[in-house]
Amino acid sequence: MEKTASQNNSDSTSSVRSDQPVELKYPLLSRIDSPDDLRKLPLASLRDVCSDIRAFLIDSLSRNPGHFASSMGTVELTVALHYVFNTPYDRIVWDVGHQAYGHKLLTGRRDRFETNRKLGGISGFPNPSESPYDTFTAGHASNSISAALGMAVASQLKEDEPHRNVIAVIGDASISSGLAFEGLNNAANTPNDLLIILNDNDMSIDPNVGSLNSYLAHLTTSKSYNTLRNNVYRSLKKMHLVTERQRGPILRFNNSLKSLIAKQQNIFEGLNIRYFGPIDGHDVERIVRVLSDIKDMKGPRLLHLRTTKGKGMPAAEANPSVWHAPGRFDPTTGEIIGNTSKKQFSKFQDVFGDTLLELARRDKKIVGITAAMASGTSMSTMQREFPDRVFDVGIAEGHAVTFAGGLAKEGMRPFVAIYSSFLQRAFDHIIHDVAIQHLPVTFCIDRAGIVGEDGVTHHGVFDLAYLRPIPGLTIASPRDEARLRDLMHLAAYGNVDGPIAIRYPRGAGHDIDWESKPLTSLEVGKGEMLSDGSDVTVVTLGPIAYEVAQAVEKAAGSGVSAAHFDAVFLKPLDEAMMHDIARRGCPVVTVEDAVADGGLGSTVEEWLNDHGFHSIPVHRIGVPDKFIEQGSVDQLRKLCGMDVESIASTIIKASGK
Amino acid sequence: MEKTASQNNSDSTSSVRSDQPVELKYPLLSRIDSPDDLRKLPLASLRDVCSDIRAFLIDSLSRNPGHFASSMGTVELTVALHYVFNTPYDRIVWDVGHQAYGHKLLTGRRDRFETNRKLGGISGFPNPSESPYDTFTAGHASNSISAALGMAVASQLKEDEPHRNVIAVIGDASISSGLAFEGLNNAANTPNDLLIILNDNDMSIDPNVGSLNSYLAHLTTSKSYNTLRNNVYRSLKKMHLVTERQRGPILRFNNSLKSLIAKQQNIFEGLNIRYFGPIDGHDVERIVRVLSDIKDMKGPRLLHLRTTKGKGMPAAEANPSVWHAPGRFDPTTGEIIGNTSKKQFSKFQDVFGDTLLELARRDKKIVGITAAMASGTSMSTMQREFPDRVFDVGIAEGHAVTFAGGLAKEGMRPFVAIYSSFLQRAFDHIIHDVAIQHLPVTFCIDRAGIVGEDGVTHHGVFDLAYLRPIPGLTIASPRDEARLRDLMHLAAYGNVDGPIAIRYPRGAGHDIDWESKPLTSLEVGKGEMLSDGSDVTVVTLGPIAYEVAQAVEKAAGSGVSAAHFDAVFLKPLDEAMMHDIARRGCPVVTVEDAVADGGLGSTVEEWLNDHGFHSIPVHRIGVPDKFIEQGSVDQLRKLCGMDVESIASTIIKASGK
Repeated sequence: MEKTASQNNSDSTSSVRSDQPVELKYPLLSRIDSPDDLRKLPLASLRDVCSDIRAFLIDSLSRNPGHFASSMGTVELTVALHYVFNTPYDRIVWDVGHQAYGHKLLTGRRDRFETNRKLGGISGFPNPSESPYDTFTAGHASNSISAALGMAVASQLKEDEPHRNVIAVIGDASISSGLAFEGLNNAANTPNDLLIILNDNDMSIDPNVGSLNSYLAHLTTSKSYNTLRNNVYRSLKKMHLVTERQRGPILRFNNSLKSLIAKQQNIFEGLNIRYFGPIDGHDVERIVRVLSDIKDMKGPRLLHLRTTKGKGMPAAEANPSVWHAPGRFDPTTGEIIGNTSKKQFSKFQDVFGDTLLELARRDKKIVGITAAMASGTSMSTMQREFPDRVFDVGIAEGHAVTFAGGLAKEGMRPFVAIYSSFLQRAFDHIIHDVAIQHLPVTFCIDRAGIVGEDGVTHHGVFDLAYLRPIPGLTIASPRDEARLRDLMHLAAYGNVDGPIAIRYPRGAGHDIDWESKPLTSLEVGKGEMLSDGSDVTVVTLGPIAYEVAQAVEKAAGSGVSAAHFDAVFLKPLDEAMMHDIARRGCPVVTVEDAVADGGLGSTVEEWLNDHGFHSIPVHRIGVPDKFIEQGSVDQLRKLCGMDVESIASTIIKASGK
Repeated sequence: MEKTASQNNSDSTSSVRSDQPVELKYPLLSRIDSPDDLRKLPLASLRDVCSDIRAFLIDSLSRNPGHFASSMGTVELTVALHYVFNTPYDRIVWDVGHQAYGHKLLTGRRDRFETNRKLGGISGFPNPSESPYDTFTAGHASNSISAALGMAVASQLKEDEPHRNVIAVIGDASISSGLAFEGLNNAANTPNDLLIILNDNDMSIDPNVGSLNSYLAHLTTSKSYNTLRNNVYRSLKKMHLVTERQRGPILRFNNSLKSLIAKQQNIFEGLNIRYFGPIDGHDVERIVRVLSDIKDMKGPRLLHLRTTKGKGMPAAEANPSVWHAPGRFDPTTGEIIGNTSKKQFSKFQDVFGDTLLELARRDKKIVGITAAMASGTSMSTMQREFPDRVFDVGIAEGHAVTFAGGLAKEGMRPFVAIYSSFLQRAFDHIIHDVAIQHLPVTFCIDRAGIVGEDGVTHHGVFDLAYLRPIPGLTIASPRDEARLRDLMHLAAYGNVDGPIAIRYPRGAGHDIDWESKPLTSLEVGKGEMLSDGSDVTVVTLGPIAYEVAQAVEKAAGSGVSAAHFDAVFLKPLDEAMMHDIARRGCPVVTVEDAVADGGLGSTVEEWLNDHGFHSIPVHRIGVPDKFIEQGSVDQLRKLCGMDVESIASTIIKASGK
C-alpha cells in the first residue's frame, strides 16, 4: 500500500536545521514547562514566546509531518489564553484540535513533541487521557461549545468549588455546523459564564461554505463600530454602570447602532450572546488585554478573532489548503518534500473522483454532495467540471444526507462522500430520510477502517456494524480500484433497490491498470472466490483481501490449505457463496477492517446458524472491542491481530492442524 | 400491559355526534376529494372549508385518538397552501407531521381517516408510500428544510421540467435544532427558490426552550415595521423595480430599518433569507394573499405565521400540552375521557421520573438532561423540584449528549433521557463525546422497542444494534420496575466504569409494589435465571420476559421444558450465565424487543461460537430486517413473531420434539 505523506514519517531524518541546543534555538519556550512558567513572564516578552513556538513548529513539523497551518494561525491566541487564564483549573476546550500543537508545547509536552501522532506517542489532537490541560476529546468538529457549556454549568452547580472559567475555541467552519448552533442556542438560554473564542481564518480544510461564513466576512468590515462598542462596554464596566438587569437594553441599543454602521445583522447578539470583536488574532498583547477585560464578565460571551492560517510561513499563508497537513517540507524554503517513495498505485480517493466525473459526464441526474471534504474525498474532481452539480454543504453531515434524500426523491442520483467516522453524525438521517423511503442515494464512505495517525476519533471502524441493521440498505466494499468503479457504476445504473453504501479506506489500492479496465456493474449481492482450498474457508470484505491472500499463502507454507472468498457485499450476503461455504463444512475465518462485532463476521456466523450449519465454527478477525489510539496502519493492524502474520496464525489454528 | 390512551382506540365507539350524513355535516369538505376541488372554490368560501375541517377533526379524533392540537392550529395554513400551490406538482414538506391531518383530509384520505394510526390504515404522519401529496418522510423533527432544499435544487437542475414550487413547513421548536440550522445555512448559500413557512405556535410538545425561541417571540412585537416592509417589497415588485442584483442592498436597508423599529435583530436576514411576517395564521384569506404575492419570488424566503395550537377548541387552546395527543374526549364539552380501563400498573416513565427525583434528592451531582421530552420521559418530575438541575435543551439530541459529556467531565452525574429512535441523532456524540472518555453519563432510553401507533419513524428498535459496538458502554434493560430503579441506582452509585445505557419501553410494567421495594444496585453484567428447564434455554432482555414466561408455560403444556434466563445486561454479557447455558448444551432461543440482527441474539450466538460451543444452535427472535409500519404493539409483535403464541412455537420447534 502506498503511504500517504503523513504516514511516511516514522523515521526522523537528520535535522535540516543546525543542531543548536534548544536553549539557544528557543530561549523562552525551552524554559516553559507549564503555563505557570509562561505566566511569570512580562507581557512584553509574549511576542518572543510566539516566535519560539512558530520556529519550533516549523522545525519539528518539517521533519515529522502533522497538521501545520491551523496551529501556526493560533499561536498568539494560545499564548494569550494560557497567560490570562489559570489553566488547567480554568478549562480551554479546543474544537477539532488541529490548532492545538502550540497548546501542547506550552503544557509540558514540548520534549515529547517528536512523538506526535506516533504509536505510544502524543496524540495529534487534544486528548484528556494525555494531559489535564486537554479538557475534552477533540477530532470531530463543532463539539466544543456544547462540551464547554456542560463544564461551565457544572462549575456553577458546584457551589463548594471556586469559580472556574471555561473557554471554548471554535473555528469559523466548525461554528456553522448544527451541533455548534445547538450549543450556542442553549448557551444563550442557560445561566452560565461561558467564553467562546471564534477563531475566524475564513478557512476550514477546504474554503468555507455557507451563509454564516459570508456573514462572518461582513462582520469584519465594521471595525469602526466595534471599536466604539468595545469602548462603550469597557467604560460602562469601569464606572460600575453595567448590571445584568441593564444588559438587555444596552445590547439592543448597541445592536441597532451596529446595524446602522455595519449595515448588517449580528447573529450572535440575535441569540443574546454578547459579541466582541473582531480583533487582530496576531496581536498577542491586544488579545491579552481584551481577554483580561472580558474575563470576569457574567453571561455567555463571544470574542471574534481574525487569524491567518499558516501565519509566519509565507508559503503556508499563500496556500493554506495545501499546508493544512503538508507532509515533510524544507523549513527554510518552504518547499514541500512530501512522499519520497515512488508513487506506484492510485489512491481510492482518486479512483472515486475520476469515476464520479466519468459517470457525471454521462448522466445529468448524478450530483455530488460532501460536507467540507471536497478535496479529501476527491469530490473536487467533479466539482471543477460541474460546479453546479456538486454541493459542499460545510460541516453538516446530517444535512448532507437529508439534502441528498430530497434530491433523490425528485429523481436525481446523489453520491454522498463522507469519511466513515464523520458519517456517524448522520446515522439517523440515513435511516429516517433515506432508507425508510428506499431512496437511491449512494454513500461513498471514505477513510473506512483503521486510518492510522489521526487516531482514536478518526478510525472508521464502526460503519459496518451501525449500517447493517438498516433495512433495505445495500452495503458493499471493493477490494480494489476496478471494483470500486464497478460498484459506483452499479449504484448509478444497476438494479440496486434503494440506497447503497460503498466503503473504502484511505490510501492506495493494488492495481496499476485500473483506468484501462471497462466500467461495468457488479452484480448485487454477488461474492467471488479468489482461491480454493480444503482445510479452512476464509471470507473477507474490502481491500484487506490482499493481506489475507498473503496470509493464505503463508498458511499453505505450513501445510494448511485455505479457500478465500471476497464477499464484496455485506448486505445482501451472497446466498450461493454461503451455501458453497457451508457445503465445504470446514472452519470459517472472517477478516474485516472494522469492529469484529456486528459486521462481516457476525453476518456470516448468523447465516450459518440460521441455515442449520451451526456446527461450523467461525473465527472472527477484526478490530477488538476497545478504542484504538494512533500509530501507523501497519502497527495498529498488528495490535488488532489483523496483520498478515496474525491472520495466517488464525487460519492455521482454525484448521486444527 | 396497561394501554396508553392512544393505544386504546381500536374499537370505534358509537359516534357521540348525530348521525347526519357527511354531506350535511361537512358540506364543503365532503365535496373535496383532491386539492383540485378546493382550488375551484371562491376565496370567500375557504373559511367554511376550515370550519368543516375543524369539525371533522374534532368529531373523528374524539372517538379515534391521535395528535390533536397541532393539526387544529394549521387548518388555515393547510387550506391556503393547497389553494395557492399546484399540489402535488408543487411540493409541500411537512416537518414532524403532527400537524398534517388537515392535509390528509384534503388530499383524498378523508374517507379513510378513521383508520388513522391503525394497522393497515393511514399513517399518523406524512408518508410518501401512502400518497403523492406526502412528499417526504416526517416524524423526526427538523428535516423539512434540508429535504425541501434538495427538492428545490433538483427542480432547478431538471431544465426539461417546468419550475416546481417547494414549500417547507416547520414549527418554531423544530427550527431551533441543528439540522434545521444546517438546512437554513445551506439554503441561504445555494441557488434555490425554497419557501419556508415558520409555523410559530410557541409550543412544541412541551413549551419551547432556547434562545431562538425567545427571539421569535420578540419578532412578533414589530408589527408596524413588518407591515411597512411587506408593502415596500410588494410595491417594488409590482413596479418591476426589484432585481436579484438589487436584493442585497434592499435587504440591508430594510434590516437596519427593522432593527431600529423592532429594537432587535433578524436572524434569518442575517443569513440572507428573505423574511416576511409575522402574520395571523388563522386569517386564511390573508395567508392566501401573502402566499400569492411571494410565490414567484426568487431566492429562499421565510414566511412567519403566528398560530394557536388547538385553535377552535377552547379547552385545547388553554392547555395545548395536554391536548397534543389527548386520547378520547367529548367533542361537545371538551372533557377528556382518556383510558377507561382501570390503571393498574405504573408506566416505566413514572418509575424513571420518581426514581430520578429520589436519587437527585440524595446527591447534588445528579443532573437531568432531555431534548424537548421532559413530560414524555417524566424528567419533569425532577424538574419541578430541582429546576436548576434539569436541562431541557430543546430539539437537540446531539447537543444534549455532548453537553452531558461536559457535565460529566467536571464530576457531575448526568442522566440523559431521550426516546430510542430520536437518540439515533446523537450516535456520534455518544461515541466521540462520552464513550472515548469513559464518562459516567447514564442514557435512559425511553420508547425502546416497538412503539405501536406512531409507526415506522418511531419504533425504537435499532438501539441495541447501534450501541453494542461502542467500546466501554454498559448496556442494560430492566424487565420490571424494580430493576429499572436498581439499574438507575447502579448508574448513580455502582461500579459502572464509564457510560451506561438503560433501555425500557413506552408504557406500564407488571409490578404493583415497586415503590415499596428497597432501592439498591444491580450487579454489573449479572443475569438471572427466572425458571429452569431441560429441553431448551431461552434468553431474554427487558420486559418481554413477561411474554416469554407465558410462552414457556405454553411450551410446557406441549411437553417442552424450557429454562428462562434474563440477561439484564447486553454488555457486558454475564459470563457465568453463559457458561451455565453452554453446559446445558440444549438449543437456545433468544428474544428481544429490537432488531434481531446485532443485538442480544447475535451477542449470545457469538459468545457460544467464540467459546467453542458453536454446536449449540441459536434461534433469534426479534424484529426482522424490514421497516415496520403502525399498528397496536400487540398486532405488530404478532407480525414479527414476537407474541406469546409465536414464541411458544419457536421454543417447541427449537426443542426438536
